[in-house]
Amino acid sequence: MGGTELENLITMFARLPGLGPRSARRIVLKLLREKENGLVPLADALRNAAASVHTCSVCGNLDSSDPCAICTETLREARICVVETVADLWALERAHVYRGKYHVLGGTLSALSGRGPEELAIAPLLKRLEQGGVEEIILALPATVDGAATAHYLIERLRRFAVPISRLAQGVPIGGALEVLDEGTLATALRARGAA
Amino acid sequence: MGGTELENLITMFARLPGLGPRSARRIVLKLLREKENGLVPLADALRNAAASVHTCSVCGNLDSSDPCAICTETLREARICVVETVADLWALERAHVYRGKYHVLGGTLSALSGRGPEELAIAPLLKRLEQGGVEEIILALPATVDGAATAHYLIERLRRFAVPISRLAQGVPIGGALEVLDEGTLATALRARGAA
Ligand SMILES: [Zn+2]
Ligand SMILES: [Zn+2]
Repeated sequence: MGGTELENLITMFARLPGLGPRSARRIVLKLLREKENGLVPLADALRNAAASVHTCSVCGNLDSSDPCAICTETLREARICVVETVADLWALERAHVYRGKYHVLGGTLSALSGRGPEELAIAPLLKRLEQGGVEEIILALPATVDGAATAHYLIERLRRFAVPISRLAQGVPIGGALEVLDEGTLATALRARGAA
Repeated sequence: MGGTELENLITMFARLPGLGPRSARRIVLKLLREKENGLVPLADALRNAAASVHTCSVCGNLDSSDPCAICTETLREARICVVETVADLWALERAHVYRGKYHVLGGTLSALSGRGPEELAIAPLLKRLEQGGVEEIILALPATVDGAATAHYLIERLRRFAVPISRLAQGVPIGGALEVLDEGTLATALRARGAA
């Protein structure tokens, strides 16, 4: 059905999140119909991103500069919003309701998956606090059991810096990932944030 | 939000069929998390497909050889199944119910879109019939107004070759694209095909 290269390409698309064999075939056929305007530019964009996009060594964001554009933006407030994933960071940026900096943990603690503190970017967060100048830490972790356990753990570890710690107000639906929330919900939860 | 390269890549994914900004962001984040196993191999597979996959000059299928593997397979029956798109050809191949050859029209006639016969691959189909040896033509066009008009037009043009023309039995849902049908429906419609 179209040769090895074609089958290989369809298989790769079918493995991407949210896609399956049928949607992968539709995508590949569309890309091949518009080779010069579809397939080739996408291959180039992937190559460019592979070469130029890196994880920010300060906050864990993905960007073409390291430190990332957010970390180097001088007008950002001296707050750190702690999120689970880069997707969550992007969701907050799109909501345009927060003007501080971020820290991407890269996951939550999980007793079930055996994921401990050393697997999350907690050491770099402590290092940022040791360097001083941080006025507030906002925990924007998912409203799940693991998210709550992670928040609890961080509050203990961060206590010694005597920096105010808050978390997103209830308003974030239980079990909901930040990434899929609408901007209004995110704005409300952030504005109504309380002491952690 | 991640630099120009990243935004560019997300925009390109978001334009693909069935995807939007949210699913594009999820895909790009996953690819970047697994750069060496995700992003780079996908870029390579796209490059390889761009270089090696071509439209078959005989039937219009997409393949890494021209003529395609189906056109050169000697055990195929001397029938030609006329389909609208490569996706339809692939759907019939996946159903494993047809052992003949194909012809991809590349569309249907459409009064509304002003798409006439010269925009479809009708001339190459006539050429194949002029070369002789074709025992049957099966019209597997969509059960839409445009599909029916195209079938009618083809029947007129193909009459002079005195080759039996059939079409898929009713059983293909009205307005339905072949591509989304299950294999059982396709098998039934093909087996019960009647004179056109
Ligand atoms: Zn950063
Ligand atoms: Zn062919």
